[in-house]
Amino acid sequence: MNRQYNFSAGPGTLPVEVLEEARDEMLVYKDAAASVMEISHRSPQYTAVAESARTLFRKLLGLGDEWHILFLQGGASLQFYQAAINFLVPGSTGNYVVTGAWAKKALAEGNLVGSTHTSATGADNSFSKIPDVSSWDVTDHAAYLHITSNNTIYGTQLSTDPEVSVPIICDASSDFLSRPIDMSKYGMIYAGAQKNIGPAGATVVLIRQDFLDKIPEGLPTLLDYRTHAEKLFHTPPVFSVYMIEKVLRWIDSKGGLSDIKRLNDDKAAVLYNRIDLNEYYRGVADIASRSNMNVTFRLPTEELEAKFISEAKSNGLLALKGHRSAGGVRASIYNACPPEAVAALVRFMDSFESSNN
Amino acid sequence: MNRQYNFSAGPGTLPVEVLEEARDEMLVYKDAAASVMEISHRSPQYTAVAESARTLFRKLLGLGDEWHILFLQGGASLQFYQAAINFLVPGSTGNYVVTGAWAKKALAEGNLVGSTHTSATGADNSFSKIPDVSSWDVTDHAAYLHITSNNTIYGTQLSTDPEVSVPIICDASSDFLSRPIDMSKYGMIYAGAQKNIGPAGATVVLIRQDFLDKIPEGLPTLLDYRTHAEKLFHTPPVFSVYMIEKVLRWIDSKGGLSDIKRLNDDKAAVLYNRIDLNEYYRGVADIASRSNMNVTFRLPTEELEAKFISEAKSNGLLALKGHRSAGGVRASIYNACPPEAVAALVRFMDSFESSNN
Repeated sequence: MNRQYNFSAGPGTLPVEVLEEARDEMLVYKDAAASVMEISHRSPQYTAVAESARTLFRKLLGLGDEWHILFLQGGASLQFYQAAINFLVPGSTGNYVVTGAWAKKALAEGNLVGSTHTSATGADNSFSKIPDVSSWDVTDHAAYLHITSNNTIYGTQLSTDPEVSVPIICDASSDFLSRPIDMSKYGMIYAGAQKNIGPAGATVVLIRQDFLDKIPEGLPTLLDYRTHAEKLFHTPPVFSVYMIEKVLRWIDSKGGLSDIKRLNDDKAAVLYNRIDLNEYYRGVADIASRSNMNVTFRLPTEELEAKFISEAKSNGLLALKGHRSAGGVRASIYNACPPEAVAALVRFMDSFESSNN
Repeated sequence: MNRQYNFSAGPGTLPVEVLEEARDEMLVYKDAAASVMEISHRSPQYTAVAESARTLFRKLLGLGDEWHILFLQGGASLQFYQAAINFLVPGSTGNYVVTGAWAKKALAEGNLVGSTHTSATGADNSFSKIPDVSSWDVTDHAAYLHITSNNTIYGTQLSTDPEVSVPIICDASSDFLSRPIDMSKYGMIYAGAQKNIGPAGATVVLIRQDFLDKIPEGLPTLLDYRTHAEKLFHTPPVFSVYMIEKVLRWIDSKGGLSDIKRLNDDKAAVLYNRIDLNEYYRGVADIASRSNMNVTFRLPTEELEAKFISEAKSNGLLALKGHRSAGGVRASIYNACPPEAVAALVRFMDSFESSNN
């Protein structure tokens, strides 16, 4: 069986060059005389991998020395709690912009830790629209404002780095490294790796030093960000970090985040233009909130949607089924999804409409 | 460069057959038309991988349905805290047998959560000996007795499954699946994967249902074991679980845990017999507490130790340096370390002694 066009929402498609390199190094990594999975996380070989990954993050995002780059575990879901116990100290309020299911989960974990406030919510319109930044209500004594930059399930995305008066904590799991970021707006950004930056099993956490300085004493060792900012405390998810380093090199080879954004904008435009061509396909997200990563749309009936997803699969277009809580069709077109995949999907949409209208 | 004999304490050596299979499947996993790293964790392909891994755990360890098998993240180090918040409820005491550095860390995290008691400690003899089970002091109202079955740094190992009056929580990170276990003695066993069962990035947690039932309400979602026992809650470390499944099949193909134990006993005997042959090499661990996984020994001087480790490496015997806190030489001879590696090490020990005595 050959590789086919893969629209999986996550774990998502990886650059084929990255997979080929990993394949070729699987039994012997460089001068290690062993796989990268079989060597100490304190070996010179793994140390070089992790350092290269950090150097590439700094280059791609323009990060100064005030930024820590951590490779943690537990996915974004553990960050919902971990961020709260590190920053939601007594006397402060965790502010949350609720733009979907993951944001709700982040808020729920914050509620276990301290006082929270919903600064804005898209629940009224089934999360099809991201509330305008100008409407966000940030409390006094806010520990942070937690946002979700892209909502995988609904196919919505924040179009800017918001300007607010408090440090932003951003769950960027599904659009991290898909476009440039103005890092000055953030205190912390985190992302599960499995969309744009690597395989599942690593969570990238970027934290600014002045935000890190606010962490109180007495936290569980593994959940205190300072533990990982200070040194390599325990065994990291070696293979995931090794794959991330390769993906970062691939992004860099494409020209960096501005060029990646251009490619992503172009792919998304092709797909949204086809959706908007007539009434047969209907985009789910409000136009101003449309995601360039997860494109969600409906067909005239649920039966046609099921048929569409099934026939697409037979035509080598994989994993187009919408999230089980949302239904419909979802095409996830992350960085590593080639333009050819989107073109093939559009051709299939044309042909499906002709045959089923 | 070719593969060489690898004595890394962890991440440790993997069966070459497992690496070859992963290499061959890297770009296309079975009928997925994508890498296993690029497909949904709810896809039929990944679901089958995880189910096969659980089935193999049940077969190898003789587990009944009362045992849950969880694939978590964060390593054993996160379990130190996680186990405590799940089980160290008010009014109870967490009992700890302190047999080394990792046990001390487990106790420290327990202290953040509730009342603890040191049931026994090997600190008096620099952890070269595991205190006799008969001397362990277990309190009334013990929530659990936490033990470490094998101590990677010192090269000591518990020789039996202890019989005590309370549920045992066992950190088996460095000897899990190296021998049969009497599971009836345990309420929970956990292990970072990166010694005997796979690459870093997954933590295997086995929990018995009646122990799980004791967990209180209100825990952080990701740290509550029930979250993971009930369903696949969030994205697991897909590639690590995929590799674990292959390692489990490899263990099964070797005849299961009794046969694996025989192989491990034989390897260890060859190495300890060489150490005990004369006074040139000196075993670090008390003979009754010797580990079959991590064999620690000293040479007449630290200079000779450094020379030994360096010349061994030149002779294709990798990663023999003792832990930075202990010094000396450490040969980690996990399941996947072939007898030929131990034979080669013994030949090198002979030749080094002849040339440096």
